[in-house]
Amino acid sequence: MENLLVPIKNRSYEIYIGSGLLSTNKVFDDNIISDQVLIVTNNIVAPMYLETVKTSLENKETASIILNDGENQKNLDSFSKIIDKLIKHKFNRESYIIALGGGVIGDIAGFAAASYQRGINYIQVPTTLLAQVDSSIGGKTAVNHPKAKNMIGAFYQPKCVISDTDTLNTLPKREFLSGLAEVIKHSLIMDREFFYWLESNYEKVINYDEDALKFLIKKNCELKSSIVAKDETEKGIRALLNLGHTFGHALETMTGYDKLLHGEAVSIGISIISQISYELGLLNSNDLDRIINIFNKVSLPTKIDKIDPEELIDCIYLDKKVNLSGLRLILLNQIGKASIEKAPEKIKLISLMKKILNG
Amino acid sequence: MENLLVPIKNRSYEIYIGSGLLSTNKVFDDNIISDQVLIVTNNIVAPMYLETVKTSLENKETASIILNDGENQKNLDSFSKIIDKLIKHKFNRESYIIALGGGVIGDIAGFAAASYQRGINYIQVPTTLLAQVDSSIGGKTAVNHPKAKNMIGAFYQPKCVISDTDTLNTLPKREFLSGLAEVIKHSLIMDREFFYWLESNYEKVINYDEDALKFLIKKNCELKSSIVAKDETEKGIRALLNLGHTFGHALETMTGYDKLLHGEAVSIGISIISQISYELGLLNSNDLDRIINIFNKVSLPTKIDKIDPEELIDCIYLDKKVNLSGLRLILLNQIGKASIEKAPEKIKLISLMKKILNG
Repeated sequence: MENLLVPIKNRSYEIYIGSGLLSTNKVFDDNIISDQVLIVTNNIVAPMYLETVKTSLENKETASIILNDGENQKNLDSFSKIIDKLIKHKFNRESYIIALGGGVIGDIAGFAAASYQRGINYIQVPTTLLAQVDSSIGGKTAVNHPKAKNMIGAFYQPKCVISDTDTLNTLPKREFLSGLAEVIKHSLIMDREFFYWLESNYEKVINYDEDALKFLIKKNCELKSSIVAKDETEKGIRALLNLGHTFGHALETMTGYDKLLHGEAVSIGISIISQISYELGLLNSNDLDRIINIFNKVSLPTKIDKIDPEELIDCIYLDKKVNLSGLRLILLNQIGKASIEKAPEKIKLISLMKKILNG
Repeated sequence: MENLLVPIKNRSYEIYIGSGLLSTNKVFDDNIISDQVLIVTNNIVAPMYLETVKTSLENKETASIILNDGENQKNLDSFSKIIDKLIKHKFNRESYIIALGGGVIGDIAGFAAASYQRGINYIQVPTTLLAQVDSSIGGKTAVNHPKAKNMIGAFYQPKCVISDTDTLNTLPKREFLSGLAEVIKHSLIMDREFFYWLESNYEKVINYDEDALKFLIKKNCELKSSIVAKDETEKGIRALLNLGHTFGHALETMTGYDKLLHGEAVSIGISIISQISYELGLLNSNDLDRIINIFNKVSLPTKIDKIDPEELIDCIYLDKKVNLSGLRLILLNQIGKASIEKAPEKIKLISLMKKILNG
């Protein structure tokens, strides 16, 4: 098992990474100071891991709630169901929530923990690659509004993160690959060396080589933690982590949260933003090719059909990244370096989108 | 106009108290750094003050939402309506919410501000005595669950508080008196001198003497701020502010949030807890008499019919104040001094309640 500290002022917490963590009491016992634990999970993860986790918590009063799988469950209804359950079991202010699942479960359960009695403890137990390398770290919690993603939520840090690498073996391939979009994103924003490593090692990774995976997870936790520690509530540098997400979220919203996996939307979003960066003269063509190439190698989509460019841009103007000074985009200067820039005029952006989407 | 600082680490804010504040641009202009402002209010306050506030914000893009009046509106439905409105108007992360109304409006609007896009700014504009002396200060936001009060919420501080004392002139007498319950509570917890002042000046207060009211509001803001500054998220001393609220909330829940005003429930709750404190030998009979007496003088209820003692105690065990070490109650040692104590055994508590409720 490896440990890693997320150094947030007054509320630092550990990420535990290793094999077999779900079936050992120790990490849970060390981190839960309460008798009352609600496990929030979904109907895909529950048959595989719910009993295992319950057994590791056998000295506690546990309850569980099993939501349906999928991004379209990430709404206020699911949030309400969790609150109802906590109240039904008379869980108090010292009780814990365990988020056992992927990013969707982590986001909903985290927001329920942030809000129940104005905040109880929660532990992230990510069971997907995407959640282990990205969404379980940093305390962003939220549910979606029918009209826009992540509109209702809180910045609320977990008590700890427990990443059992064994869970990746049962993850559907498509889900696994989807997680690599955030991995590639981290390398593009801030670590060119790590991008080279991915180019050389992607085959090991997609074939589940244990050492390669452990290195990759730990590296991503380090990269993400370093940014979150500097800017917990996204007033500045943390916004770089949204690379590709402005377009990605809009695509998810326009396709109803059920066609694209989050990572797939992000890989298309990063591809679009890389092409915009190239068209604006920021990114050179060699780096652009390498970016599209790495997505192709790991079978992640870089384009999407049947999307109207104008509708896409309109959808983005509702997205949370639009502020007083107009739309800002996270653009790539080179592989390993991103920056936040004022977007081109709306009309220019639409004409760029027409070129890119039809290209 | 008088100013008062709530000294919270990194997020200190001003309380402005005075006559005519709603109809002057200055305080709003000084505190709102955005073009987008949503005013949340209710159908009683809106006809009196909504246009006034809109006029004071004439250089902004304002929208408004008018909820129905009453504690039974303080639920996730109202919360959702506010979020829908923000999204409909494409309000961004820099936008502001103004909570124009009493404690209910402040609590709902504050929780919506805490959650929209993981947190936007909000300003409390309390129009009731209760909100001006208590609920608008300190950042407790929440909505109720059908089974228990304030179960879903956040600690989230406002950008500032604007208390226009003129609004008290249009407040129904019953509402005005209800606010005095929290005033008396503050004196009982921490300021015996101020309790004496209330005994001597209650007639001026209930007859709306301007100087008496200004002194009273400022004194209460000072008392409350001093506690909130020491313990923002209620890990310790802030819990003293819940004097009478454990019983008060239970009574509100049992009567369906529509029979008792919050302050009335609190005055009954404080009366019960004072009697428990006396029965346990903590409070002397002279202080107990003075407490019951001051509530009588300002026409606040000190008892309630048709409540089953056992049902009341069961309801309390669901309340948020129950933690690992069993039920804790805020008891009175004397007028001006409260402390958090382990409650008597449940069976003893029920028998005490039978004596008090039937006494």
